[in-house]
Amino acid sequence: MNYGAILEEVARALADAPKLGEVATYIPELGSVDPDKFGLALHCTDGSSFAEGDADERFSVQSVAKVLALAWALSLDAESVWRRVGVEPSGDPFNSLVQLEYERGRPRNPLINAGALVVCDILFQRTRHAKDEFRDFVRTVSAIDDVDYDPRVAESERRTAYRNQALLNLMRDFGNIESDLDEVLDFYVHVCALEMSCRELAQAFLFMADHGRCLPAGKRKMLTREQTKRINAVMLTCGFYDEAGEFAFRVGLPGKSGVGGGIVAVCPDRFTAAAWSPRLGRKGNSILGTEALALLARKTDSSIF
Amino acid sequence: MNYGAILEEVARALADAPKLGEVATYIPELGSVDPDKFGLALHCTDGSSFAEGDADERFSVQSVAKVLALAWALSLDAESVWRRVGVEPSGDPFNSLVQLEYERGRPRNPLINAGALVVCDILFQRTRHAKDEFRDFVRTVSAIDDVDYDPRVAESERRTAYRNQALLNLMRDFGNIESDLDEVLDFYVHVCALEMSCRELAQAFLFMADHGRCLPAGKRKMLTREQTKRINAVMLTCGFYDEAGEFAFRVGLPGKSGVGGGIVAVCPDRFTAAAWSPRLGRKGNSILGTEALALLARKTDSSIF
Amino acid sequence: MNYGAILEEVARALADAPKLGEVATYIPELGSVDPDKFGLALHCTDGSSFAEGDADERFSVQSVAKVLALAWALSLDAESVWRRVGVEPSGDPFNSLVQLEYERGRPRNPLINAGALVVCDILFQRTRHAKDEFRDFVRTVSAIDDVDYDPRVAESERRTAYRNQALLNLMRDFGNIESDLDEVLDFYVHVCALEMSCRELAQAFLFMADHGRCLPAGKRKMLTREQTKRINAVMLTCGFYDEAGEFAFRVGLPGKSGVGGGIVAVCPDRFTAAAWSPRLGRKGNSILGTEALALLARKTDSSIF
Amino acid sequence: MNYGAILEEVARALADAPKLGEVATYIPELGSVDPDKFGLALHCTDGSSFAEGDADERFSVQSVAKVLALAWALSLDAESVWRRVGVEPSGDPFNSLVQLEYERGRPRNPLINAGALVVCDILFQRTRHAKDEFRDFVRTVSAIDDVDYDPRVAESERRTAYRNQALLNLMRDFGNIESDLDEVLDFYVHVCALEMSCRELAQAFLFMADHGRCLPAGKRKMLTREQTKRINAVMLTCGFYDEAGEFAFRVGLPGKSGVGGGIVAVCPDRFTAAAWSPRLGRKGNSILGTEALALLARKTDSSIF
Repeated sequence: MNYGAILEEVARALADAPKLGEVATYIPELGSVDPDKFGLALHCTDGSSFAEGDADERFSVQSVAKVLALAWALSLDAESVWRRVGVEPSGDPFNSLVQLEYERGRPRNPLINAGALVVCDILFQRTRHAKDEFRDFVRTVSAIDDVDYDPRVAESERRTAYRNQALLNLMRDFGNIESDLDEVLDFYVHVCALEMSCRELAQAFLFMADHGRCLPAGKRKMLTREQTKRINAVMLTCGFYDEAGEFAFRVGLPGKSGVGGGIVAVCPDRFTAAAWSPRLGRKGNSILGTEALALLARKTDSSIF
Repeated sequence: MNYGAILEEVARALADAPKLGEVATYIPELGSVDPDKFGLALHCTDGSSFAEGDADERFSVQSVAKVLALAWALSLDAESVWRRVGVEPSGDPFNSLVQLEYERGRPRNPLINAGALVVCDILFQRTRHAKDEFRDFVRTVSAIDDVDYDPRVAESERRTAYRNQALLNLMRDFGNIESDLDEVLDFYVHVCALEMSCRELAQAFLFMADHGRCLPAGKRKMLTREQTKRINAVMLTCGFYDEAGEFAFRVGLPGKSGVGGGIVAVCPDRFTAAAWSPRLGRKGNSILGTEALALLARKTDSSIF
Repeated sequence: MNYGAILEEVARALADAPKLGEVATYIPELGSVDPDKFGLALHCTDGSSFAEGDADERFSVQSVAKVLALAWALSLDAESVWRRVGVEPSGDPFNSLVQLEYERGRPRNPLINAGALVVCDILFQRTRHAKDEFRDFVRTVSAIDDVDYDPRVAESERRTAYRNQALLNLMRDFGNIESDLDEVLDFYVHVCALEMSCRELAQAFLFMADHGRCLPAGKRKMLTREQTKRINAVMLTCGFYDEAGEFAFRVGLPGKSGVGGGIVAVCPDRFTAAAWSPRLGRKGNSILGTEALALLARKTDSSIF
Repeated sequence: MNYGAILEEVARALADAPKLGEVATYIPELGSVDPDKFGLALHCTDGSSFAEGDADERFSVQSVAKVLALAWALSLDAESVWRRVGVEPSGDPFNSLVQLEYERGRPRNPLINAGALVVCDILFQRTRHAKDEFRDFVRTVSAIDDVDYDPRVAESERRTAYRNQALLNLMRDFGNIESDLDEVLDFYVHVCALEMSCRELAQAFLFMADHGRCLPAGKRKMLTREQTKRINAVMLTCGFYDEAGEFAFRVGLPGKSGVGGGIVAVCPDRFTAAAWSPRLGRKGNSILGTEALALLARKTDSSIF
């Protein structure tokens, strides 16, 4: 299949799309991005890769990184993860406290904020230097040596993270956060402040399409086959907050979005793809990014359904 | 792949499983089934089929039939379906009214009771003799001439359907039910009262695995490729109420359960499978049925993730 | 205290008030009332009475009658009432199903629709001819022989009572409605369809201000002192749905409103008052009626706080 | 009326009551109190006062102090209070976040935790040394010079105040907390850590029964007549969380409880009463304290209903 040509077609088809949606501003630092950036990349399990547009420009991956944190936590302590976090779609916005109160501090899944905070708490407990080691983990799975956090974004989010503070305190009240709340939050905002390009994201997620084997050629095994299947399942049912069904419906691939405008999608056994466009719809997902992946999935006949 | 041998292995592996869970009794007529029945069937897109245990004994398919009603409605009037019903997981029990009130009478998806009632309302509006024609539709897609309703189960459910009456009245209050409420309910309880065996269910759902083409040999096209993908996506995210994530996680296939103890699963391009065991877990899904399909998916390496 | 002069002052003060709010139309038959009617009446425990404006014109008392139904039910079977219905404010709109589902079919209080339906169910069970006997009860406590239902209003509400049907069915599902649902609903819509004037309402509620003794001179005792105190407490905390605090705050008297635009208020030991103005605010309470009673309470220094 | 004899009767009637309920332990420091303490005091608007049992022993007044904070805030900036906090019963536990999220950070009333935190924020903004000045305010209205905070209780609550931190952060996210969160929390835990005896509490609340005039003889006016009526109304509808209706029903007086086991009740124009017994019921209100006030209200015929 000529993926390069397909990517080009997709990019061309969207070149004149109306400029709908708004750049996220709830983290002040994110508001300064050029809203009309557009990148698209695809990385095959056979090692070949393709890209279009601003696919080599780094941006703030935000919630996309929750999947990497989950993957790392599963490799270190899967038992704690599934004891303290569920695997069900939440049916609520990403930062809602309602369900968390009714369900006594156990987040519905690891991809809503509450769940990602618990995952960060687990990682913080299991490691000595969580921030450094998580960065190393991402560098290893992506085979890119200089992936790093944007400290200004981390700081900008930390200073305005009232909603996440509320989640942390509520879960702590129920006994489901065990480390110091400020430390967990600091780690969490760093995870979300990872900077990567579309091409790098596609590369970093390749182990999700290849049963736990990651780049480079050596194909080091980071997770078991079962574990990657589970993460893909959670992405499909929970990766887009209260638009998860819509993405499964329109794209048909497990995926995860971030408010920086990035989206990663996984086609098991074949490829990973990443799209970037900072304009978001009402529910916090990139409008053109979703559109691009929907087109790509159709043209490559890669829906898992 | 030797599906026959795999089914046998699965059946053997579960033969001595502890007898956990309870038969549904909220529809009185369902309470009389032998709780230890167990059937398993698989039907390939190439036409071959396999079965184990009580795979030829008919049982009340209950909510499994909601998928067939949805498929028929999409073939008749897809626009109305997606205008009046959503595609998001509900995150709530199958018969909850809470979300419906907050979201002003538009059900989250077509596989919870509220959504299936709207689908029945649409079908009732678009047809002359909804009950007869739906039975004909099921006979056509399954290529089985004598599939029929169990009138005692329908009547038994109709007489105790207070929760569904509450849903109907609430949606009517919001203007999302248009026909006579008693007629819609009567049609709905008949849909749920379909009697089919595992083998027949696997056969009836084959068009979901084969891009809309159904049995027999002629392979009449009932739905478009896009439509079946959408139904599969909805089954994956919404087919098991507040256990949808768990099923995606453990089995990795789109599927739908019923309180009669049946579960159907779809492996796109390869096969459909149906399991039956009347003992249900706390959330209304068959315990051994889920277990059987999880084993089957693992042994056939058919998870879509 | 010269109540007559005070009533006149209140009426004069409101004569030029802006015409805000809308007449209720959810019961079609109610929509035809003249929106600018205004009545005000006061009846003292010493027997004297005063009136202004359209105080002798009958209107549909609607939810105001829930208090009379509660009073009658307490006189017949107080134990069942407090076992099956709570005494807490609901904090939700009058017809919400959310709380009812969380609290498994036990309504928060007898003045929201769900609670009043349970009260009607209790009355229906304890009597032979509930409609006739309730009318007789109202005639007795008010000492007015020709108080009656408006059958067109009852029928109009019955035909559009989807929300109440939903409540009934949900409570029946939880086992908290015991009679035939249609019969209970029919009784309920009749209770709400009582037609009375302000003067008559003030007279009918006098036993609430006089420790259970009602008109006429003989002062027959309908309820115990304790029971009327309890009803007054429930009116104060629950009589105005999610505006109960506002009414307590502004008027400072136990009271009950109806969507027909009537409001009754009780000043224990001194008087009852009734106001009528069909224009309602967003939460279903008469705007000018509330205003009139607030002024009246201030001028008569009758707030219980 | 011989209040002294009545208090004695009440104390005697409860002397052998079963020891039900548990001392609050969620603030560790509170757990060390003797569970069987019992005090009762009454202060008349004519200046006379009466007491029984441990009525002179100070205890942690906890949420009872929310009323004093509200009174002080109303005397300083009533407009801000009613703009930022509602007057409706919440129908939820005292520390619930659910309603706060649905209603976008505006607490239902000033007596649930969220509302009291907003009141503290307003006081913190309007004053230079909030803690010192609030203490002075309480000393003034009670005419007791040495009323003070228990710093260990304040510190104990501050260290475990996860739920209140969650409320603060959530409201800050909605823009309804304006000062530094830690400062507001520090002030709030001090307000709750006031130590007073029953006799002192009855004295401090006297201005609520006497239209804003407080002790001593000089009868300095702290609030307007209207303001005290409003506070009494809010206490009646909201002073006991999701047991407000129950208290109105059984006692029939505006009141406020605290998890230290104290309860204050106000009988307008006549007296204030305070009871103390540390054993709490399931909803956080003193069991014997409620019982004592119910008896007292009956024997003094002081229910406002």
